[in-house]
Amino acid sequence: MVRAEIITIGDEILYGQILDTNTQWISLELDKIGIKTIRKSSVGDQESEILSILEEAQHRADIVFITGGLGPTKDDLTKKVLANFFDCDMAYHPQALEDVRVFFEKRGRELSDLNRDQALLPTKAQYVQNKQGTAPGMWFEEKGTVWVSMAGVPFEMKAIMEDLVLPRVAQHFKTPTIVHKIVKVVGIGESYLSDMIQDWELSLPSHIKLAYLPSLGIVKLRLTGFGDSVTQLNQDIQQEIDRVMPLIKLYVFGYEQDELSQVIGQLLIEKGANISVAESCTGGYLAHLFTEIAGSSAYFKGGVISYANEVKIETLGVSHALLENDGAVSEACIIAMANGVREKLQSTISLATSGIAGPDGGTEEKPVGTVWIALSHAEGVITRKLQLAGTRKQIIHMTALNCLNLVRKFLLNELTQ
Amino acid sequence: MVRAEIITIGDEILYGQILDTNTQWISLELDKIGIKTIRKSSVGDQESEILSILEEAQHRADIVFITGGLGPTKDDLTKKVLANFFDCDMAYHPQALEDVRVFFEKRGRELSDLNRDQALLPTKAQYVQNKQGTAPGMWFEEKGTVWVSMAGVPFEMKAIMEDLVLPRVAQHFKTPTIVHKIVKVVGIGESYLSDMIQDWELSLPSHIKLAYLPSLGIVKLRLTGFGDSVTQLNQDIQQEIDRVMPLIKLYVFGYEQDELSQVIGQLLIEKGANISVAESCTGGYLAHLFTEIAGSSAYFKGGVISYANEVKIETLGVSHALLENDGAVSEACIIAMANGVREKLQSTISLATSGIAGPDGGTEEKPVGTVWIALSHAEGVITRKLQLAGTRKQIIHMTALNCLNLVRKFLLNELTQ
Repeated sequence: MVRAEIITIGDEILYGQILDTNTQWISLELDKIGIKTIRKSSVGDQESEILSILEEAQHRADIVFITGGLGPTKDDLTKKVLANFFDCDMAYHPQALEDVRVFFEKRGRELSDLNRDQALLPTKAQYVQNKQGTAPGMWFEEKGTVWVSMAGVPFEMKAIMEDLVLPRVAQHFKTPTIVHKIVKVVGIGESYLSDMIQDWELSLPSHIKLAYLPSLGIVKLRLTGFGDSVTQLNQDIQQEIDRVMPLIKLYVFGYEQDELSQVIGQLLIEKGANISVAESCTGGYLAHLFTEIAGSSAYFKGGVISYANEVKIETLGVSHALLENDGAVSEACIIAMANGVREKLQSTISLATSGIAGPDGGTEEKPVGTVWIALSHAEGVITRKLQLAGTRKQIIHMTALNCLNLVRKFLLNELTQ
Repeated sequence: MVRAEIITIGDEILYGQILDTNTQWISLELDKIGIKTIRKSSVGDQESEILSILEEAQHRADIVFITGGLGPTKDDLTKKVLANFFDCDMAYHPQALEDVRVFFEKRGRELSDLNRDQALLPTKAQYVQNKQGTAPGMWFEEKGTVWVSMAGVPFEMKAIMEDLVLPRVAQHFKTPTIVHKIVKVVGIGESYLSDMIQDWELSLPSHIKLAYLPSLGIVKLRLTGFGDSVTQLNQDIQQEIDRVMPLIKLYVFGYEQDELSQVIGQLLIEKGANISVAESCTGGYLAHLFTEIAGSSAYFKGGVISYANEVKIETLGVSHALLENDGAVSEACIIAMANGVREKLQSTISLATSGIAGPDGGTEEKPVGTVWIALSHAEGVITRKLQLAGTRKQIIHMTALNCLNLVRKFLLNELTQ
C-alpha cells in the first residue's frame, strides 16, 4: 500500500483565515486510486517549520503532496525551502518562463519581474504545467520519496492534479485496480439513508467497500471495488447497485459527476419542455444553479427575482390584495408567483420560492426557515411548505435543492400529489 | 509566545470523507487570545499513529488540542492512547458518570454499557464537562505541556471550548498581544498589488507582518502586529494602513469581514438609492451576491434573468431589430437591458450583464469570455467591455465582481467616464 502525506503551507490556513479544502479533495482523489493518506499537516510561512515537516514526511511517506506558498510575493517560501532541502540552486525553467509569458499575453497584461520569477524553480524540479495560473507545479524524486508541490489556489491545484499529477502517480506506483461508482441521492439525510440500507451494506462482498460522502442536502454513496479486472469490478459493483436500487430509487437523481440541475435539464430536453423561475428568498441562486451548467440556454428561459413586493405586483402580476391579506410568504402568493412567471416568460414549467431566509424577519407564526415553493405547469400548480434550519446561506441552498427535487420528481411522474 | 498545536484524530477526516472545519475554528479562536498555532495535523484511528503525533507535539507545543476519537465504538482510541501515553490507568470518573446518566435520562433513553464507558477516563485527566454530548472533554498537565482532548462533533467541541476551555487557557497562560487588521481590495491582481506597494512593505516595522490572502478577483491584505498593548498595536497598524492607502485607495473596498456586495448595500442606503439587475450570462449569480447578504431587501429591488432573447424583448423591452443587428452580446443590447430593468423595476440604479460564459458559443469575433456590462442611472448609462479567461464558473464570477466594482466606484464618484 502506497503511503501518502499531504502538507499545506501558509499562515492563512494555519491561523484559520481560510478554510483548507485542498487536503480533503486530495485525499479523496488518492483514495480513488488506492493510495492511503497517513498524515495531513499544516505549517506556516516559516522556513524552519517547512523544513522540519519535509524532513518528518520523508521518513513516513512514499509520496508527499505540498500545496501553497508558491505565490509571487515575499511571504511565499516553498520553492526556496525545497531548493534548500534538496540541496540545489534555483534557475529559470525555459518552458515555465514561456508559459508564464503566454499566460500574461493572452490576458493582455504586462509581465512584471515578480511574475517572471514564477518560472524560477529549484534545478532538481521536474516542471508540471499549471494551465490555470502562474505558479508552476513541481515533481521531485529525491531522498527515496516522490514530492509534488502545487499552488494552493483550489481550482489551480485541482486542474494540475487531474490533468498531470494523478495519471503520473498511478503510473509511477503501479497502483492496484480500483473501480469507483458514485450514486447520488437527494431528499433524505445520511442517517436515515444508512438505516434504510444497512442490511444491504452488511451483505456487501469483502472486495466492495461503501462510503457515505454527505454535503448539504445531497449524499453521495461511493462504492469501491478492489480486484484485478476492471470489467469484473464494474460488473460486481453494478450488481450491488441493482440490489440496493429498489430501496432508494425515489431518492437517486444521478451518478458520478451528475449535477441535479443538469439531470433536470436532460429531462426537460427529452420532453421538449423548458423552465423559468420566480425567486424571492433564493434571490437568484436557483437560476444560478441552472445557468452554471453549460448548455442550459437550451431549456432555461430566464426568471424574475421579485425581492421587493412591487416587483411581485408589477412583473409577476401578484395582486396587491393578496399580499395584504396573505403576505409574501404564503401559499396564495407562491401560486401567483409561479403562474405569473410561467405566463410572462411563456415557459412549459416554472418554479417559485418565497420564504424567510433570516437571520432576521421571522415571527412566531412564520419563524426563520419558513419557506413556500411551487411548481406551475400546464395542468396546475404543486406547492410545498418547508421548515428549514441553519444559516441564511444554508436556507437559501436547501430551498433551491427542494425546488430542483420537486421538478425532478414531477418530470419523472413520481409526485404523489 | 504560547505555541499551540491542533490534532484531529479519525479515519473519516484523514481519508477525506468529511471536511475538517474544527481546526480552522480552533485556530481562529486561539488567534483572538494571542496564542499562535504552529502546526495542524490529522491522523487516523491507529494507536501507533496517534502515539507518534502526541510524542512529536510534546516537543513543539505548549498546548495541544485534540479532537475526535472519543466515540463509544471500538474504532475510537483516543482515551486508551492517552492513558498509555501518560502512563496511567483508566477509571470511571464519578462526575462524568453522573453527567452521562443525566444526559440519557433527560432524553428518555436507556443507558447502555457502551454509553456508561464514556465516563471511563485516564486517571490523570481533569474532567471537562460536555453539555452537548456524551464524550467528556479532558484536560491534562503532563510532560511539560497542556493537553486538551474533545469530541470531534463540531457543535460539541465549540461549546466545550467556549464555555470551559478558552477561559481556562487564557487564565493558564500569560499571553502576548496580537492584533490583526484586514484590508480588502478588488480590481487588481496579487502580483500587481505587490509591485505597487513593495516599498511600503519593505519599510514595515519589524513587529508588523504583512500577508496576501488572494481569492478569485479579490485580495485580502492582512497586517499582524505583535506587542504588549492592544491600543498601541491598533495605532501602529492603523498608521501603516494610512501610509499605504494613497497608493491603493482606488482598489480598497472594505475591511475585516466586509463583503463587496454588502459595502455597496451600505453606500446605497446612505444615498437613499436602490438597485436592480438584468442578467444574461451571469444567470442569477449577480443577484445572489446581493441577496445572500442579510438585510439586502433594504436596497435590492429584484431583477430579470433574461436568458432567452424573448425574455429580453418581452420583459426588458429590448427591440427585436437591435438583437438582429447587434446581437445579445453587444453594447447596444447591454444599454437596452440596463435601461429596461431600471424602468421596469423602478430602481435608482441598475446593472446588466451579457456575454459568452462558455465553454461553447464563442466565435472568432466574440470569443468565450467576451462580456458586456452596464450600469444605468438617472443621468445615463456606463458600459464596459470585458475579455475574461477561465472556466464557465470563473467567467460568471468575474463578470459579477466587475459589475459590483463598477457600481462601487460609481457610488463613490470614482469613475472617470
